[in-house]
Amino acid sequence: MKPFFRNYFPIITWGATYNSKILVNDLVVALVVTIMLIPQSLAYAQLAGLPAEIGLYASMAPLIIYAIFGTSRSLAVGPVAVVSLMTAAAISPLAGQGTPEYLTAAIGLALISGLMLLILGILKLGFLSNFLSHPVISGFITASGIQIATSQLSPLLGIPAHGETFLETAIALAQNADKINFYTASIGILSFIFLFWVRGNLASLLKRFGMSVRLAGIFAKVGPVLAIIVSISVVAGFGLDKNGVRIVGSIPQGLPQLVIPQFDSTLWLSLLVPALLISVVGYVESISVAHTLASKKRLRIDPDQELIALGAANVGAAVTGGFPVTGGFARSIVNFEAGAETPAAGAFTAIGIALATLFLTPLLFYLPNATLAATIMVAVLSLVDLKAIKHTYDYSPADAAAMGATIFLTLIQGVEAGLIGGVLLSLFLHLYRTSKPHVAVVGQVSGTEHFRNVKRYSVVTDPSIVSLRVDESFYFPNARFLENQVNQAVAANPEMKHFIFQCSSVNTIDASALESLEAINQRLKDSGVIFHLSEVKGPIMDRLQKSHFVDSLTGKIHLTHYDAVYSINPELARQTLNAVRK
Amino acid sequence: MKPFFRNYFPIITWGATYNSKILVNDLVVALVVTIMLIPQSLAYAQLAGLPAEIGLYASMAPLIIYAIFGTSRSLAVGPVAVVSLMTAAAISPLAGQGTPEYLTAAIGLALISGLMLLILGILKLGFLSNFLSHPVISGFITASGIQIATSQLSPLLGIPAHGETFLETAIALAQNADKINFYTASIGILSFIFLFWVRGNLASLLKRFGMSVRLAGIFAKVGPVLAIIVSISVVAGFGLDKNGVRIVGSIPQGLPQLVIPQFDSTLWLSLLVPALLISVVGYVESISVAHTLASKKRLRIDPDQELIALGAANVGAAVTGGFPVTGGFARSIVNFEAGAETPAAGAFTAIGIALATLFLTPLLFYLPNATLAATIMVAVLSLVDLKAIKHTYDYSPADAAAMGATIFLTLIQGVEAGLIGGVLLSLFLHLYRTSKPHVAVVGQVSGTEHFRNVKRYSVVTDPSIVSLRVDESFYFPNARFLENQVNQAVAANPEMKHFIFQCSSVNTIDASALESLEAINQRLKDSGVIFHLSEVKGPIMDRLQKSHFVDSLTGKIHLTHYDAVYSINPELARQTLNAVRK
Repeated sequence: MKPFFRNYFPIITWGATYNSKILVNDLVVALVVTIMLIPQSLAYAQLAGLPAEIGLYASMAPLIIYAIFGTSRSLAVGPVAVVSLMTAAAISPLAGQGTPEYLTAAIGLALISGLMLLILGILKLGFLSNFLSHPVISGFITASGIQIATSQLSPLLGIPAHGETFLETAIALAQNADKINFYTASIGILSFIFLFWVRGNLASLLKRFGMSVRLAGIFAKVGPVLAIIVSISVVAGFGLDKNGVRIVGSIPQGLPQLVIPQFDSTLWLSLLVPALLISVVGYVESISVAHTLASKKRLRIDPDQELIALGAANVGAAVTGGFPVTGGFARSIVNFEAGAETPAAGAFTAIGIALATLFLTPLLFYLPNATLAATIMVAVLSLVDLKAIKHTYDYSPADAAAMGATIFLTLIQGVEAGLIGGVLLSLFLHLYRTSKPHVAVVGQVSGTEHFRNVKRYSVVTDPSIVSLRVDESFYFPNARFLENQVNQAVAANPEMKHFIFQCSSVNTIDASALESLEAINQRLKDSGVIFHLSEVKGPIMDRLQKSHFVDSLTGKIHLTHYDAVYSINPELARQTLNAVRK
Repeated sequence: MKPFFRNYFPIITWGATYNSKILVNDLVVALVVTIMLIPQSLAYAQLAGLPAEIGLYASMAPLIIYAIFGTSRSLAVGPVAVVSLMTAAAISPLAGQGTPEYLTAAIGLALISGLMLLILGILKLGFLSNFLSHPVISGFITASGIQIATSQLSPLLGIPAHGETFLETAIALAQNADKINFYTASIGILSFIFLFWVRGNLASLLKRFGMSVRLAGIFAKVGPVLAIIVSISVVAGFGLDKNGVRIVGSIPQGLPQLVIPQFDSTLWLSLLVPALLISVVGYVESISVAHTLASKKRLRIDPDQELIALGAANVGAAVTGGFPVTGGFARSIVNFEAGAETPAAGAFTAIGIALATLFLTPLLFYLPNATLAATIMVAVLSLVDLKAIKHTYDYSPADAAAMGATIFLTLIQGVEAGLIGGVLLSLFLHLYRTSKPHVAVVGQVSGTEHFRNVKRYSVVTDPSIVSLRVDESFYFPNARFLENQVNQAVAANPEMKHFIFQCSSVNTIDASALESLEAINQRLKDSGVIFHLSEVKGPIMDRLQKSHFVDSLTGKIHLTHYDAVYSINPELARQTLNAVRK
């Protein structure tokens, strides 16, 4: 088998050792995940503003496709909360909820996002997702959780309220608070309390009744099914749908039809930026889960192949009338804990959903939207992590600023502004930091060949030699800063005859910095000072040799800083080396 | 005197020691620079599409203001080629040349640019100019030189042609080539040849006649005055202006009036981006010249105060009806070579220009635009440095790509697209580079405590210990790369029991990388591997102590890498240390 096929079709690798024991195991896992996924599919379709069946459609083809292309053995793909929110945010400005145009836009979004992921994967550009720094993604998920929870208050309480951002939704809720529906609110609040209790306490209760820890955990995750059964019974039994309780209604029975998305340049252009953001956020969420679960079994994830797998899954979602999907956190944990051995478990889950779509949908007719809203709210509350701001601030105020800005912008301006603003701010703060790096004047530690910061250590210096250590790569944001440091040193040290840059922390010297080093060399020459470098790393030396700088340098490039000082003032250097350390 | 005043008014420092000897010296310098500046002022006004007198106005108030606030003793402020081109590019889309709106926009541009520089200076944000990397600024200046030279072919040859970019101008010139004016072209081409000869040969000729090197150099710089006198005589004597030779015409005699710029939100908003770019480019050009000249006398330039000085100079230009100015390269060199002792020389130059405006303008009536065009073309040809692409490519292909993109975009799309595109590309390439840093598996060099790359050196390793050195700061663009490196190492080394990151090249660890280190710690723990760090720098240790990472770390943070390996396998470490080096 050629490596090409093995790389692009991981199914070949694990498929070769598949046997009946693994099959039985995977089938049991699929049953558990199917039960968990049915309410989630309906709920996330509601969150995205789409009909319930679209959630089910998005939980079939993508799972089978991921099983073919994915490198994670535990990842469970499908609709997830944050991506559903981003979908609603992207297409709401383009079409009204419930219109065919809205569905077309959702399908287009899945297609474009899928194609983008495929292209990134084929070109091996997965590193682009790194520009979403951890504080930005963490802030974004917290803000999304708040916004999702707020938006679900409307179906949960039966208050008509719609807004594109948290702020708009909160205002609409406050304005229409008097239109609350008593029956809806009762179902919603009771469901919420029950689900909240299940989440926190059911597992330990089951354990007390003698169930194994793992099994108890899995049961607790499928608990929402109970809430759904009870609330369907109550609504149907009392005919509450006639009292203003909104229900899911009739879901078309049957498998999704093949959809050939129509190319619409205006629509696609306006979806480009949201599709890119959905791709990156979805990928980051998915790859983190996949890495975490894989390392528990010492398995490897291929980040570029994961792009291809998620891309293909989204294209699959689009051509079967679904909306954007990615690997979900909670669902993948269940998949892993239940003991999924191979990605085939995901494919069997898809078959489970297909069977549910064929035979169970009539039973869901009386399912109240309020119960789905409660499901979503309980799920997203775990996303909100405001303490992270404090933790991040303690470690790095700059990172906390990026996180805070992301949360603020997401809540006030929406998901796109939040993400883009956060990324730009974290880039800017990084460049700002490296543009003014830590600089130490160094001197020789008595009794050693080591050179240390004169401010932190008692060291020996020669007034005719100024040694500077810059703790950063030399590159364009700090190139002129370096020039300025040298200019200051020249003006401040009239006795200086030699200037040495200790380059032990310098990982690169770009063309701007090279130009600055040349300018420094020339200016030091004009001032009658000889310019040296020390401890330049191998790869940098290789490149410097190709430039004219080495030839024009008034001094030399020394292997160690001690060598440099010794070559200028051997007596003092040796004397200090032989002295007793203070 | 409070340091506040000394810092913001450098004139206090040098003014205190001013005496009659310096005065005489500065007056002589001012005379030389005035003679050089008169044709330049007229030419750069023409390049900016403005009436000739605006060039003279921009050469008065700004010079006096710079003398008060500037920290360079040699910088000569006034209209310069690149900034004049950028001015034309910024305001041409907003108003037709020759209209009052065009002049209003130019004045507004000087004002906004001046205010921006002032704000940047007061907030000490001069580092922002560093984001213009050297390859980008060098490429931009080359492309500007080409574009300016092309645009001046129209007045030089008397071909009516106007375009916003190099491409448009070149096409217009080709289309209208048949409309060439014989008299104009003769004057233009002869002036160009003469000026080109003066530039290259006059100095050496004068030296051969016994003139001192310095004096000959200065005379060569003021040579253009001769071309101007001759061409005025020819046009006036033969009445060539009646044969289609375009002349400067009547320049209003008298000093500029005080202008209170009107606030116009639409106009100002559309000038914001061009004003920022003009500010940054002008500042970078000016500060480079100032640094170069200052170091020759071991003097210091204060980069933040220079922002204030240039900002005030531009506000001064605006309120006296001028257009954006900055420190010019050629003119400052002449100022320096002629022996300018203090910024007062600049103030005296302003007086010289004022006298010229009062008394000499009638003499300039018959000055042909073609001669001014020749002046500009000869001046800008020295800006074009295509060889720099090759040099940069040899040193760093990534930097050469940024330079090439800047040149290409500037020529095809204009100055703004070129600068912004170049900056974005250089940022992206930097992030790309640091997102995939150099990583070395290291082992112990026999007979030493040193650890080196196993691929480059013959070293001793223990299969249960994997040591990785990453030559880059740990931060968000490479955080997941680090995780991936560790995941690969885990999958590839089944015998691994200990994993060590040697952090000697790590200058920072941001919150994203901290999160990744925590994930790595957890995943290694899940795989039964103990995680260590070595050679972590002081400032990073200070911050790590504030996080939970140090407590949860399965291994330890060791001072040296030898300590780390010794703590795990003391026998092998000591044995290798005592072995004879291979």
